[in-house]
Amino acid sequence: MKKQIKVFAPATVANVVCGFDVLGFAVNEPGDEVEMTLTDQPGVKIVQITGDNGKLPLESHKNTVSVSVQHYLKHINREDVGVEITLHKKMPIGSGLGSSSASTVAGLFAINQLMGSRLTAKELIPFAMKGEELACGYGHADNVAPALMGGFVLIRSYDPLDIISLPVPTNLHAAIVYPEVDVPTKDARQMIRTKIQLKDAVTQWGNVAGLVSGLFLDDLDLVGRSMKDVLVEPFRSILIPGFEELRNIAIENGAVGFGISGSGPSVFALTKDSLTARKITDLQQAHLTKMKINSSAFVSAVNTEGPKLL
Amino acid sequence: MKKQIKVFAPATVANVVCGFDVLGFAVNEPGDEVEMTLTDQPGVKIVQITGDNGKLPLESHKNTVSVSVQHYLKHINREDVGVEITLHKKMPIGSGLGSSSASTVAGLFAINQLMGSRLTAKELIPFAMKGEELACGYGHADNVAPALMGGFVLIRSYDPLDIISLPVPTNLHAAIVYPEVDVPTKDARQMIRTKIQLKDAVTQWGNVAGLVSGLFLDDLDLVGRSMKDVLVEPFRSILIPGFEELRNIAIENGAVGFGISGSGPSVFALTKDSLTARKITDLQQAHLTKMKINSSAFVSAVNTEGPKLL
Repeated sequence: MKKQIKVFAPATVANVVCGFDVLGFAVNEPGDEVEMTLTDQPGVKIVQITGDNGKLPLESHKNTVSVSVQHYLKHINREDVGVEITLHKKMPIGSGLGSSSASTVAGLFAINQLMGSRLTAKELIPFAMKGEELACGYGHADNVAPALMGGFVLIRSYDPLDIISLPVPTNLHAAIVYPEVDVPTKDARQMIRTKIQLKDAVTQWGNVAGLVSGLFLDDLDLVGRSMKDVLVEPFRSILIPGFEELRNIAIENGAVGFGISGSGPSVFALTKDSLTARKITDLQQAHLTKMKINSSAFVSAVNTEGPKLL
Repeated sequence: MKKQIKVFAPATVANVVCGFDVLGFAVNEPGDEVEMTLTDQPGVKIVQITGDNGKLPLESHKNTVSVSVQHYLKHINREDVGVEITLHKKMPIGSGLGSSSASTVAGLFAINQLMGSRLTAKELIPFAMKGEELACGYGHADNVAPALMGGFVLIRSYDPLDIISLPVPTNLHAAIVYPEVDVPTKDARQMIRTKIQLKDAVTQWGNVAGLVSGLFLDDLDLVGRSMKDVLVEPFRSILIPGFEELRNIAIENGAVGFGISGSGPSVFALTKDSLTARKITDLQQAHLTKMKINSSAFVSAVNTEGPKLL
């Protein structure tokens, strides 16, 4: 059995505009890397974290990667195993791109590989949700499920957990821009109203059903028409500088659809090819620069394989 | 060009449990029939209605069939045409099975045939919605769209109207029971809360997305798991005698899923074959008889063709 491994796990776009808390997809860039080594000393240790500017805890009981790996080892009755983890953060923290999820999933994918792939990607989801609980205050699945399974994922139900893989239209790309402003997930959730109008909910689930249908029918026009959010975006977008202008840039330049990634502040567009995606992020970044806001951009195909060995 | 025609249009099950106001499907039984004759006297006349126990108006401006035919003729600039209509109600009125919709759709299908099929089924939907506006007080599409197009239909959006045909799993049957109690659509709508919890809406759109995915994947287990309604059924089911017991009968006897048809009082189960459907309706009717409630039952495959010539 292998003793050392290096893996990648993808960033993810949760919600996909209309599917608040139930939809997400993975991208090929960015993502996090984990190096994992088995040792003879029982216990899970974080030995090093790079790229986090000292933001993430090294203590095993506080870090989402080690905590979820501990849960995994307990589940398979291998708490005798020693694990040393190096985490390379290769994506911004608090950006709305499933940063904690990418790290956690990389860790779980690595330990599962080292333990002989005892669980399937789907079976790893509950362990990754433990990591999300630690990072975000509640164990959501709309980042970890697509990060583990790749592609578009529907969380039909949390209790019991019921996860459905949805098809990915050919050559679908994501154009992501992260404006470097601070929007903690907890605050972004507090922007949302807990009581809503039934008629708005009907509009929303018409769009959720339309988006899912568009994916199955490979009908990107339908996907785009369905990427509307009357419930959450109106509030969360307030925290994102120049949101309406960023949307206009995306739509006027051929995006299938546009919206907030997760709880923001990152925004994303879906596009039919890589060139369109790059054009959109270039123009959006130029706009943010005019607003004196630093930003990063990521262009890649929608990820269809989930985490991978490096 | 033909001068006389007889057509059938199907009953429909709106909402399909989780898809309030956005989903519906058509059945092969029951349905309404319309005989239509072109004459030289301009104007749309209802000459006879059978099977309605005198409940429906014969006046052209009050009857949903004639009103929608008038809208159609105005649209194609043929108000010079004379039309005589005989409506055969072959299904219960106020049963939650899209009774007004079946009549209206039969009328529109007939006139469109007589006028040389100038509009597609989808293009007829707005005219049928005019009929629903007259019958129910608002122009909903979750009965008329499946009645016109057959199969399962998603109304993604009302403004603009955006209708998506969904696949019908092979051999899917509907087991419908109509307990003969009075539940007017308007009252049933008033049972519903206009303000809801966001978390309940999330549960609901997870299920809507699951149901749509199940249809595309031909996964009847997923369809069944998704047929849950936390928002509307808890209130509307109060008006339906023995609702929980009717559900238990359906689920214990192999139904894919069970719920209220439209605004009730009819209930329906989806099943994998006709025998299962018949067994369920027999047991449900026996239960209603014990409760001293008269009922009718209808068993048929899900309709995939919409209205047809007789």
